[in-house]
Amino acid sequence: MTEIIDTVDYVGGRTRLYGIVGHPIEQVRSPEMFTAEFRKREHDAILVPLHVLPVEFEATLPALMRLRNLDGLVFTIPYKVRACALADELGAQARRVGAINALARGGDGRWRGEIFDGLGCVEAFRRRGIALAGRRIVQVGAGGAGAAVGVAMAGQRPRSMRVHDLDRARAEGLVERIRAVDASIDVAVGPPSIDEADVLLNVSPVGMLDDPRLPVDVEALPSRLVVFDAVVKPDRTPLIELAAACGCETVIGREMMRGQVSRMADYFLAGGDPAG
Amino acid sequence: MTEIIDTVDYVGGRTRLYGIVGHPIEQVRSPEMFTAEFRKREHDAILVPLHVLPVEFEATLPALMRLRNLDGLVFTIPYKVRACALADELGAQARRVGAINALARGGDGRWRGEIFDGLGCVEAFRRRGIALAGRRIVQVGAGGAGAAVGVAMAGQRPRSMRVHDLDRARAEGLVERIRAVDASIDVAVGPPSIDEADVLLNVSPVGMLDDPRLPVDVEALPSRLVVFDAVVKPDRTPLIELAAACGCETVIGREMMRGQVSRMADYFLAGGDPAG
Repeated sequence: MTEIIDTVDYVGGRTRLYGIVGHPIEQVRSPEMFTAEFRKREHDAILVPLHVLPVEFEATLPALMRLRNLDGLVFTIPYKVRACALADELGAQARRVGAINALARGGDGRWRGEIFDGLGCVEAFRRRGIALAGRRIVQVGAGGAGAAVGVAMAGQRPRSMRVHDLDRARAEGLVERIRAVDASIDVAVGPPSIDEADVLLNVSPVGMLDDPRLPVDVEALPSRLVVFDAVVKPDRTPLIELAAACGCETVIGREMMRGQVSRMADYFLAGGDPAG
Repeated sequence: MTEIIDTVDYVGGRTRLYGIVGHPIEQVRSPEMFTAEFRKREHDAILVPLHVLPVEFEATLPALMRLRNLDGLVFTIPYKVRACALADELGAQARRVGAINALARGGDGRWRGEIFDGLGCVEAFRRRGIALAGRRIVQVGAGGAGAAVGVAMAGQRPRSMRVHDLDRARAEGLVERIRAVDASIDVAVGPPSIDEADVLLNVSPVGMLDDPRLPVDVEALPSRLVVFDAVVKPDRTPLIELAAACGCETVIGREMMRGQVSRMADYFLAGGDPAG
């Protein structure tokens, strides 16, 4: 007679809530990745997709932030810049890039915003034990993610950085931001040339999906070059395939994503404490 | 080199969102029960706890309802009455009880509200094949859940209903609501007596947790009596234990909860269509 009520073990009344805010929302990967990260850390929390239309962003977000069991938000396209206005405080990366992708509720009730796109890239290099200090970096792509990667890389004391973007003004803007981080870096807009580079970063969409192109005009790569590609679909872009064939060390977009999830989870669980 | 990013399989960018709104929120069971129900129906959806403070209810809820991937809300204490104002349309039960516990977004974008506390009880009887038409019902308890159960029972064409509540005005109020559902029912405020009853409904808190009391002053029950107890903690209240010992058919609170989850999931998936 006594019926068992079916239940699941991954959400309950005590579960803490996180959300990813974007438009569109169906393509986001944060829900399954962050929820797994929280689970791994034995934190009873879930990150759900929150589909907010652009015309409703300002009316909706402050209300969401009033939910007492909501501890953090992730922002994706097209909200990384607009979301800055929601934060009571901005972290160092966010101030330099002018965008956030994480908003964390602190124990003091204040909301802190930071951007982790670039920090995730730095974290991927750190996990692989690849030093960036003193290296000569060539970066292709200075858009939203590119700006975040460039600013984060600039914090690692590289010797030089050359920035290329099809939109020269964007490349120049990133050069200025890099200078603001560390005036001692030899930084300039430059062609996508690897002749004098130690590290090549592709943060452009070149090589995405079925795009057969390389972000640099070469047929081979010197084996001393460390090659990073932010593209995640596919995992192995034409650039990564060539680099591997030439004996280069490679760091892929998925490692950046993993580094970012880890750093953002630290940030969320510390309530946006910069030391977290 | 290629690292796998840990993911979970129960939430993603396409997952449809439901929430339970209450204060406090930690004790609610809806997240694990509804999410399991959606999963059983192979509907990619999750129900999460949404902790809204009473002073922020009116400012928060309309914004939540703007989330494009939010399809429904469950309301619990203390919001079942206030939530009525959020609905564009109220169902038949909700109009009679003056409260809702479900708000569903229709395909036409309109929000429909209904209360399922009583319908869940009726569903539990239906699943057990126990007819209510023509029966003589004694109901103890005419508070929020009691009103919903009484109104839903009145829709099943019982011959008579006797309603008891420590607060006589509440009992009288429910008698009026029952009359409004079906004027042919012989309904009155009455003592908690089973002498001429076929069905005994306990919708009072008597017997909850470690309360050793019975809602009726008896030492035995006639075996013809069908005994229902809305209390879910414990599963087997003193009333249910006595009824079982006396050979009565029993229906327990958990069966009502299960019936309610099932009826509410139908309602949500039909976008609040009354036929759903």
